[in-house]
Amino acid sequence: MEALITGGTGLIGAEVVRTLAKRGASKLTVFDINDSTQRLDELATSVTIQQGDLGESRQVLDVVRKSQPDVIYHLGGMLSLPSDNNPQAAFLANAVGTYNVLEAARIHGVSKVIFSSTIGTYCQDLDDRPIDDLTLQRPMLFYGACKVFGEHMGMFYRRKYGIDFRGVRFPSIVGPGVRTPGSVQYTSHMIEESANGRHFTIWVRPEMRVTLLYVKDAARAIVELAEAPVEQIQMVNYVLAGPSPSAQELADLVERKIPGARIDFEIDQEIQARLDKSIHPIDDRFARDEWGWQPTYDLEALVDDFLTELSQHPQRYA
Amino acid sequence: MEALITGGTGLIGAEVVRTLAKRGASKLTVFDINDSTQRLDELATSVTIQQGDLGESRQVLDVVRKSQPDVIYHLGGMLSLPSDNNPQAAFLANAVGTYNVLEAARIHGVSKVIFSSTIGTYCQDLDDRPIDDLTLQRPMLFYGACKVFGEHMGMFYRRKYGIDFRGVRFPSIVGPGVRTPGSVQYTSHMIEESANGRHFTIWVRPEMRVTLLYVKDAARAIVELAEAPVEQIQMVNYVLAGPSPSAQELADLVERKIPGARIDFEIDQEIQARLDKSIHPIDDRFARDEWGWQPTYDLEALVDDFLTELSQHPQRYA
Repeated sequence: MEALITGGTGLIGAEVVRTLAKRGASKLTVFDINDSTQRLDELATSVTIQQGDLGESRQVLDVVRKSQPDVIYHLGGMLSLPSDNNPQAAFLANAVGTYNVLEAARIHGVSKVIFSSTIGTYCQDLDDRPIDDLTLQRPMLFYGACKVFGEHMGMFYRRKYGIDFRGVRFPSIVGPGVRTPGSVQYTSHMIEESANGRHFTIWVRPEMRVTLLYVKDAARAIVELAEAPVEQIQMVNYVLAGPSPSAQELADLVERKIPGARIDFEIDQEIQARLDKSIHPIDDRFARDEWGWQPTYDLEALVDDFLTELSQHPQRYA
Repeated sequence: MEALITGGTGLIGAEVVRTLAKRGASKLTVFDINDSTQRLDELATSVTIQQGDLGESRQVLDVVRKSQPDVIYHLGGMLSLPSDNNPQAAFLANAVGTYNVLEAARIHGVSKVIFSSTIGTYCQDLDDRPIDDLTLQRPMLFYGACKVFGEHMGMFYRRKYGIDFRGVRFPSIVGPGVRTPGSVQYTSHMIEESANGRHFTIWVRPEMRVTLLYVKDAARAIVELAEAPVEQIQMVNYVLAGPSPSAQELADLVERKIPGARIDFEIDQEIQARLDKSIHPIDDRFARDEWGWQPTYDLEALVDDFLTELSQHPQRYA
């Protein structure tokens, strides 16, 4: 199996590269605008790395032509808050970028494209039911708008050109080395800051509950979705869920795992009000039913592995 | 009031131009890729017409800078079936085009942008309820995918940049001069062919019911939406509905209005199967409640006016 991974030097991307390498992929190509291969660590020398911009169609066509992958894992793009700060760059990276990937797959005969979308596509006009794959997607941020468009384009390319497009919608991803700011990333920050002996202040209510997914489960989900038999893929795009701890529960666990951890709360009312509107429980039954998705890291396993990673691979997450 | 109308030489666009001219707009600029001003008829000499391509940002920036409109009525783009035949052109016209219009509005300080979307944004994963503004939008065609993206981008520009973006989702538009092929356009074709003394064969079941909107109601809706007080605009994007005749009811009415009309049925099973899945009743209560929308043409008034238009302005619809 040969694969191209866009965004392959990033948080989830590098973990997908690692997961595919472990499963014996014969050739892996990473396409990323970022030239740091820090997260790829010891894999940086065994995968092909092509620096480039998703918004530049010639660069995308070029890397797809050269690597001739069986599957494109399209994880690249600008994240939520950077996109909100620069929607013009996000339009190119996220909307044009996904179009460029689908077009390159069509032109060069790549049979499968896997796409990562977000729980941020659900935001406005929600009712009281848990979020599932039939919930209205009405994003508030530009990032979410581009992701919905990517899902819809992928479904169209699936129907029109027979490209086996499939996608996931991730909840908040937790893992070592998270640097991008985000309103629910007190989770990763709390664990990493505490491991480094620093005090951490959580900005949401102690009883606030957010659905998480450990980065290794996220990467495995993407690879398992790609490997599922095509006849099982009916919904095409799938929301995923892992543990849903309250901020207090996560803080208690971190304090138990890291003696001396100093964690307190100071609520940011603006963030809290926004989260109160948009955070809902997640029902990922379609992914579970159709291709057997299930998370393997419960909250304790997540924190344990996070701390092990930090101590075993400090250079990877520095 | 000065306005820029993209797609202003088209079916709805020309009628919007006519409606604004009747209401005493001081300056109207039409931006369209089509250089035929046939539908604008006697107005072609009194409005400014700029031929250009929505996908070319410099052309869009240029016409917005030169015309300095109070409102942009953004009706331009590629329609449903042409988009399906050439998604690459549709990506430029519909996705990049709407982005270009929003960016031009931001850069040149246009305070209001009105957008036309489509009932085609509702298609897959529908439940049994009537379609309203809270129904899941999961389009099957590229046209619908671009329209959902346009709605989401507009809502984002509204929040981020304070542009007073508002939009409508049209059902099947009926009017003289409809040439673009479409699976439910037996409606307009039946009336016009019968008026011209030609036999017409309807390709859906006689009892098939489709929600229509007369082109003059569609144009008035757009202008009234633009004029509504800003505090009443909560939903932002609104589905609209007019009469919902069965194919048989419309045929009976046309035969009554045009003695000697010859209309019969020959069902296209493929189109019928697709329509059976995607056609639902439409509930436009949000538009009615928030800004007082209501259609003025019932089915009989629609057919009467259609026939009057054809006889009074044959050159406009030739």
